[in-house]
Amino acid sequence: MLDAGYWMLLSPSCKSAIRNLKSKISPGRRPLRAGGRNRTMALIVQKYGGTSVADLDRIQKVAERLIRVYSAGNDVVVVLSAMAGETDRLIQLAHQITNDPNRRELDVLVATGEQTTVSLLCIMLESMGCPATSLLGHQAEILTNRAFGRARIVGIHATRIKELLSQRKIVVVAGFQGRDQQGNITTLGRGGSDTSAVAIAAALNADVCEIYTDVDGVYTADPNLCKKAKKIEKICYDEMLEMASLGAKVLQIRAVEFAKKFNVPVHVRSSFQEEEGTMVVKEEVDMERLAVSGVTYTKDEARITLSRVPDKPGIASTIFTAIGEAGIVVDMIIQNTRKGGLTDLTFTVSKSNFPKAMAIQNEVAESIGAEQVIGDEHIAKVSVIGVGMRSHSGVAAKTFAVLAKENINIIMISTSEIKISCIIEEKYTELAVQVLHHAFGLDSP
Amino acid sequence: MLDAGYWMLLSPSCKSAIRNLKSKISPGRRPLRAGGRNRTMALIVQKYGGTSVADLDRIQKVAERLIRVYSAGNDVVVVLSAMAGETDRLIQLAHQITNDPNRRELDVLVATGEQTTVSLLCIMLESMGCPATSLLGHQAEILTNRAFGRARIVGIHATRIKELLSQRKIVVVAGFQGRDQQGNITTLGRGGSDTSAVAIAAALNADVCEIYTDVDGVYTADPNLCKKAKKIEKICYDEMLEMASLGAKVLQIRAVEFAKKFNVPVHVRSSFQEEEGTMVVKEEVDMERLAVSGVTYTKDEARITLSRVPDKPGIASTIFTAIGEAGIVVDMIIQNTRKGGLTDLTFTVSKSNFPKAMAIQNEVAESIGAEQVIGDEHIAKVSVIGVGMRSHSGVAAKTFAVLAKENINIIMISTSEIKISCIIEEKYTELAVQVLHHAFGLDSP
Repeated sequence: MLDAGYWMLLSPSCKSAIRNLKSKISPGRRPLRAGGRNRTMALIVQKYGGTSVADLDRIQKVAERLIRVYSAGNDVVVVLSAMAGETDRLIQLAHQITNDPNRRELDVLVATGEQTTVSLLCIMLESMGCPATSLLGHQAEILTNRAFGRARIVGIHATRIKELLSQRKIVVVAGFQGRDQQGNITTLGRGGSDTSAVAIAAALNADVCEIYTDVDGVYTADPNLCKKAKKIEKICYDEMLEMASLGAKVLQIRAVEFAKKFNVPVHVRSSFQEEEGTMVVKEEVDMERLAVSGVTYTKDEARITLSRVPDKPGIASTIFTAIGEAGIVVDMIIQNTRKGGLTDLTFTVSKSNFPKAMAIQNEVAESIGAEQVIGDEHIAKVSVIGVGMRSHSGVAAKTFAVLAKENINIIMISTSEIKISCIIEEKYTELAVQVLHHAFGLDSP
Repeated sequence: MLDAGYWMLLSPSCKSAIRNLKSKISPGRRPLRAGGRNRTMALIVQKYGGTSVADLDRIQKVAERLIRVYSAGNDVVVVLSAMAGETDRLIQLAHQITNDPNRRELDVLVATGEQTTVSLLCIMLESMGCPATSLLGHQAEILTNRAFGRARIVGIHATRIKELLSQRKIVVVAGFQGRDQQGNITTLGRGGSDTSAVAIAAALNADVCEIYTDVDGVYTADPNLCKKAKKIEKICYDEMLEMASLGAKVLQIRAVEFAKKFNVPVHVRSSFQEEEGTMVVKEEVDMERLAVSGVTYTKDEARITLSRVPDKPGIASTIFTAIGEAGIVVDMIIQNTRKGGLTDLTFTVSKSNFPKAMAIQNEVAESIGAEQVIGDEHIAKVSVIGVGMRSHSGVAAKTFAVLAKENINIIMISTSEIKISCIIEEKYTELAVQVLHHAFGLDSP
């Protein structure tokens, strides 16, 4: 039911829009009572990505959705990204000046992207008769450290947001940005708006944080690659973290970390349809039925092998210190001892770091007397993930058997409590994902 | 001479640029001593308008000029407008949503314009090896009232600016914008960047506030209209205020008011050439040589006459209350009493308000029994301005005689201590300006 008190404030055109929308409100929502103080309502944080606010038409769609949720009596905080492509455009503009733009100033520049979308959405909402106020990162008091371009949120003083909510306003917060202790504008890095939204939801103790995106949820595998993949209704934080780390691009890792830390229920769903998406929540007992919740892959890694390295103490340290000092993150490492005091050392890095890492290793190889450095960019990492592994034995053995049956050679293996990752030849990626998906009972229906 | 201490911080490419620039520094500048504390330097506030930062090439020109002034040992604060056309583009974007966009949110939107230019200039300066930091209106603590879109500056806490200057940084401040007590973004209205610059210069007790614009100074008349107009070297605040109010568009009125109030020397000059422009300063004795300093005109007014109004107390109040309530500002007012208890009442409004004012007066005329309402859009206001009038008698008489000699009919007259304004038929504008310019000895040699 619509809140009668606020209904009166809406303009006629908006009212008719809401009348139409009203009938669509899903029956699963909490029933509401009219009026101010006594209404039983939820506090909902919604985040919309760049494609959802790419132009005024889409911003209007977002406004309509918000008015629907707001008019149902809920308190609503919205977190927005910049229009799709805008952040890249601004970064490119700065790069026309220099290859290495001052980081503080680059953050000032790119922060205009969300400033534009939040003000436009508020102008849209207000023009539809719905009270709304925008807050930039510093106004919402999203406090970060001073790492420009990749800042981390250290705290949120939600007093201003709460004050505006108590005035029954929709609060529209610029995602991706915050301020440091000195009041400098900072940005959180790629995908930072997810993190903004979850952090704000945590600070407000919101009932749910809804992440609106261009896919309709988290799937058991990439649907583009595995036709039988199905949407996961519920997934726990740890699984989602592994999924995000191991290739699923639907949610930013740091956002999931925040959600886990502050126990924020996250609902990943599509901004283009009404259907429920995937709930990311605390681990529950009924989640443990299946051993494996999903299969992911990434083709973003490359492998480097130093062969016939003299096996002396300190060799590994020499090799990885050089890599670390170049700012390159190493993922998997394997060492095979050969006969005659020699060893082979293999590790993976991201493809973007591969040329630099090869150059460094060629130098290192000479200095430590390794026979040769072999690089391979044609690899993929396929992972099976599930908290169920903790109580189901034999998941690793089954994984290896399934791949072996298809004659897929496993080049490297890495495991954790809830995941098994295998490096294989890139050309087998699709096949590996499909057979694992089938073997662990994930195929729909 | 360059400041040796900071010279070392500059990159080689910048150094060579500065070597080239060094030779161009005008000899009139204050000599400087090398070193930190003991240098004799000036604190200079420079403001660049939209055309001066319209693209990256022009921003580079600004950066080069700044480095030259900075490298000469001066402390430099820069105030920027948005790129030419950008503010209009943003306003239009909002107007695509609604004809009456929420004012608070519109300010958030348009404030991105200066945010973009200040960050780009800082990226440019830093890439040239020159330390620079941008400050947005709220970061520079430009405090305003809450009148969104036309806010007035109520105070500036210059602590952050001073701190950055003490670190020998060029401080680049976003003009046109500030924040209210609650931290909302406000904008100062058209031309507000001039006011920002003068207010900052006042807060810093700067040696000079340089307003860089697309003309090279203030002229005795509009050079497009009066070929013999010449650049004024020095003009006092009161004259500049009248000039700005009466048609000279070179400097915003509120900026001049601020400059007068806080005694800030303002230097109006061209961003496209090196020559000195016009100094706007406190009144000095040697300024009083000429009776008239300049001749201005505006074609932006229209005249409304209510004829044969019954001459009763309260009639003028009725007429102008209706106009005032519609937010229309009236400029000149004349009342002529006729025989038989009737009177004619004539006043001028800006052309943009003319249709609305006519509509109101037609209603008023009916209610008070006036015979008719006559409108005239084809008028111009020509003014002669000069503090010298105070000590030169006969300026008014001479003005009227000069116009009469050319058969130019004076429709309305308004005077102050330092100006005489005449409303004439629009078609005589050019002629009137030229003959007055000549008659008061302003023609260049």
